[in-house]
Amino acid sequence: MTIKAAILGFGTVGEGVYQILQTKRDHLTKLAGAPIELCGILVDNLSKERELPHSVFVTDQYEQILAQKPDVIFEAIVGEEPCFSYLTKAVDRHIHVVTANKVMFAKYGTRLLEQAAQKVGIGYEATTASGTPILGTITRLLQANSITKIEAILNGTSNYILSSIQNEGKGFQEALEEAQKRGFAEADPTNDIKGYDAFYKLMILSQLIYQSQPSWESVPCEGIDHITADQFNDAQQQGNKIRHIASIEEVNGELHASVKPQVLSPSHGLHSIDGVDNAIHLFGDLVGPLTLRGPGAGQLATASAMVEDFLYIWQSYPAKQLLY
Amino acid sequence: MTIKAAILGFGTVGEGVYQILQTKRDHLTKLAGAPIELCGILVDNLSKERELPHSVFVTDQYEQILAQKPDVIFEAIVGEEPCFSYLTKAVDRHIHVVTANKVMFAKYGTRLLEQAAQKVGIGYEATTASGTPILGTITRLLQANSITKIEAILNGTSNYILSSIQNEGKGFQEALEEAQKRGFAEADPTNDIKGYDAFYKLMILSQLIYQSQPSWESVPCEGIDHITADQFNDAQQQGNKIRHIASIEEVNGELHASVKPQVLSPSHGLHSIDGVDNAIHLFGDLVGPLTLRGPGAGQLATASAMVEDFLYIWQSYPAKQLLY
Repeated sequence: MTIKAAILGFGTVGEGVYQILQTKRDHLTKLAGAPIELCGILVDNLSKERELPHSVFVTDQYEQILAQKPDVIFEAIVGEEPCFSYLTKAVDRHIHVVTANKVMFAKYGTRLLEQAAQKVGIGYEATTASGTPILGTITRLLQANSITKIEAILNGTSNYILSSIQNEGKGFQEALEEAQKRGFAEADPTNDIKGYDAFYKLMILSQLIYQSQPSWESVPCEGIDHITADQFNDAQQQGNKIRHIASIEEVNGELHASVKPQVLSPSHGLHSIDGVDNAIHLFGDLVGPLTLRGPGAGQLATASAMVEDFLYIWQSYPAKQLLY
Repeated sequence: MTIKAAILGFGTVGEGVYQILQTKRDHLTKLAGAPIELCGILVDNLSKERELPHSVFVTDQYEQILAQKPDVIFEAIVGEEPCFSYLTKAVDRHIHVVTANKVMFAKYGTRLLEQAAQKVGIGYEATTASGTPILGTITRLLQANSITKIEAILNGTSNYILSSIQNEGKGFQEALEEAQKRGFAEADPTNDIKGYDAFYKLMILSQLIYQSQPSWESVPCEGIDHITADQFNDAQQQGNKIRHIASIEEVNGELHASVKPQVLSPSHGLHSIDGVDNAIHLFGDLVGPLTLRGPGAGQLATASAMVEDFLYIWQSYPAKQLLY
């Protein structure tokens, strides 16, 4: 018996999943109880050169992926559609789904999870903070705890830029360009520096923790591109740091969320988070405050979260109805 | 149907489990699929006054606990024996076991896990860093990652004393007395300040990560009671901090472990951990560096880890053969 896996998208993350399936083959076979065989990769552009053996089936037709009858689909494409339609079809055919697509999952995650209930697993750890197992940690805590509040640094690009400005005295433009040069920021950095990327991740966290999201329009979403030199100076003079914080809290049954720069004192759990890292600071009613810090991006880090999700699903089904 | 739970030991942690089973009853019933009913509490001294309703069965005879046929035993007693014998009998009778006993588990954990294989679950998150889900996080990462190295602050008492000395200029004796007054240190603080407590936790981590332990005699184990004022001053003058670090690393197939005070520079992931917190800094070959920080003690924090373990076991069995 083999486990048949397909990968949707062969960008950075999709290629990372491919690499891990190859390099960790023996380890994964042992944990999954059978070898994981790649049965197909879906790409946009068939004519692009890729370093893949000829034996790997590459197609630009999703139906041809489904025709392979995969046991699991690793989805690493961008944007809401056709991704959501693809995954809906997969779940319909009882294929487990592991996704790294935060924009799609923030909007359609609940529908996918409802559709999947009782049938297949949906893994989405990689949508939020790359390989840092934030969702898995929260899922565990929620077994006994109520989580009353979270504050998180969810955008590595913004945190890198803010760190460069405050630790090294760089200007915003200079720090952004350096982030781009080092591969930490996209050519078009809008989603990162305007706060949208952190917003999507916060909505996914809200869904997991509170089983609902605040209405998107009600959430103040502010980026890091309007912080003035005076604001940075004021913070520094008082020993504080400005960090881009996504937060959500339940007060009297209502969710209060925001995504915006905040001034943190040295005693705050996220004050020491520098560079491209992500981190979450949460409060459980039994456990108290917890902080988890790790990479916010990275090919293998993100792909490893996806492979972990799959193994968890594969080992648990059908005992667990839902992954989270 | 109800789930029958017994508690061994009614000290701080055992009472915490009792409290959570009462206060979170509805939540736990929903997650477990049935109400969890307390079928007995094992105590040392029956004549001691306890705030328990008359309906709760309290005994000093372990056989009477087994006679109740519990589905799960929450073990919160101290020391190797009779604890290990108790749990061996429980596993023999197909009772799930959740333990907070680090001394017993460091020594006998492997034997319990082997004995339990295929039959019941063994939860031991609470043995290490209280409610901070270090073991669960590592277990998840190990699905895809090799963990090459960990460094951890595993003794909250030592960290509290070191923080008081370095942040507030207190002397060792003064800091220790304050820790005792605030309930962070035992009347006999030997296990904490000599490093033994951290050592046991490190051996449990070693077993989980590397499926083996270094020979106990080979591990340098040094406490915090011999650090000189000069050493503190030297560290401070260079912007560094002395922290009590338990570390383990696999080099060429050999485990290198130590438990001792170390000088950490501000860039180290554990430099900012002050007070009674525990924290672990680990390196995964795919995910890179991760840090998890949270409470190292506390009645409800520790008990919540035990309840989480049980739910995980209850939801997973028999799909998962072992909890970790």
